[in-house]
Amino acid sequence: MTSAGPGRPRNQQPSRPGATAREEILDAAAELFTTQGFANTSTRSIADAVGMRQSSLYHHFKTKDDILKDLLESTVAASLSFAKAVSGVSSGSASAEVVLHALALYDGTQLCSSRWNLGILYHLPEARGGQYEQFLASRRELRAIYGTLGVLASAPSAGAAGNPGDLVFRLIESLVNLRADGLVLPSSPLEAADAGLIICGRGNELPAIRTQSALIIERVSGGLEDF
Amino acid sequence: MTSAGPGRPRNQQPSRPGATAREEILDAAAELFTTQGFANTSTRSIADAVGMRQSSLYHHFKTKDDILKDLLESTVAASLSFAKAVSGVSSGSASAEVVLHALALYDGTQLCSSRWNLGILYHLPEARGGQYEQFLASRRELRAIYGTLGVLASAPSAGAAGNPGDLVFRLIESLVNLRADGLVLPSSPLEAADAGLIICGRGNELPAIRTQSALIIERVSGGLEDF
Repeated sequence: MTSAGPGRPRNQQPSRPGATAREEILDAAAELFTTQGFANTSTRSIADAVGMRQSSLYHHFKTKDDILKDLLESTVAASLSFAKAVSGVSSGSASAEVVLHALALYDGTQLCSSRWNLGILYHLPEARGGQYEQFLASRRELRAIYGTLGVLASAPSAGAAGNPGDLVFRLIESLVNLRADGLVLPSSPLEAADAGLIICGRGNELPAIRTQSALIIERVSGGLEDF
Repeated sequence: MTSAGPGRPRNQQPSRPGATAREEILDAAAELFTTQGFANTSTRSIADAVGMRQSSLYHHFKTKDDILKDLLESTVAASLSFAKAVSGVSSGSASAEVVLHALALYDGTQLCSSRWNLGILYHLPEARGGQYEQFLASRRELRAIYGTLGVLASAPSAGAAGNPGDLVFRLIESLVNLRADGLVLPSSPLEAADAGLIICGRGNELPAIRTQSALIIERVSGGLEDF
């Protein structure tokens, strides 16, 4: 495997997942940011962890913030693509409650199965600057789709007051905390998605919703180019 | 107002809430940790923010970690005291669903009304060492009380699979994220507590639960010495 990007050839065989040097840098940075802390990690230590010179790293990323920006965007990109794709589905055959369940389950599975638990970096004071605007905008857009689906999915005279879709969004994001606490189980994303539908007053319909939700995930994720 | 603790007299009037120099240090550190980041904050900058010499600060706290330890413990102390007090109540007259609602509402109100949003520091890699064990143990104990109440409070053939009390705990902690996103409303803690009871299959009983929950909060919080 050789680097597809610019920069000097590395003097070690790559030991990290990723087809390119850029992906290896992202993987090493994700490990260091989530285990040592963002402020405690230097670009030098990231380069060391990949086995490349610091000067080579700068061919791929100008600053440490550029790396964090890419990593944060990666935590919402696939779920936002999925959300946009299923929003179209909801205007067709599937009901809003099925679409909301599919989105919650897909998103929660992403958060639990990524190689590093990057969601713990969401509220870093360092990640509030203008350069993080694309990540923040994508997360707001994803949240808004949950909100719209929550209104459509809620049973007429049951379910939560306020914004039920936002409660579902938060329940799914809480999987980040569950994972940080070492408590995630294989069933955790489904349990969170189910609880979201219960909040919308759809607890009695869950068996049917689960079946249709699984079909949507299979159909939509198969067609997403991001996969 | 004068410092009740040891150390040199400060050369400025205190400008922060807190009856003692120790409390002023905690307030300044909480502000800096949540706005600048923990790793980016030096004990020197904390001392400057209080208007005292760095050497005086060391009379109160040996290290920056000692300050963070105290701050993290403060985010769960009152809710854990409340949880222990109401656990007794639940064995008496009030039902588990009322007690769970009261705990969730009390805890959520604490998280939303503290002067600084310290919960964003829960998953700092730096806060995982052995010196944070008391905070971690208190949070685990609080979480376990939610878990026990969730089992007792769940309607026989409705509600979430898995551990409904843990979903309520996570929904309440998600108020930390909501606050970090600038989206907390005065109604947010009650909406989260209500959603927690819906997850337990108690949505239809919410009006009565809310009334009794408010009475418990009034009674128990009035008797807690931590107040």
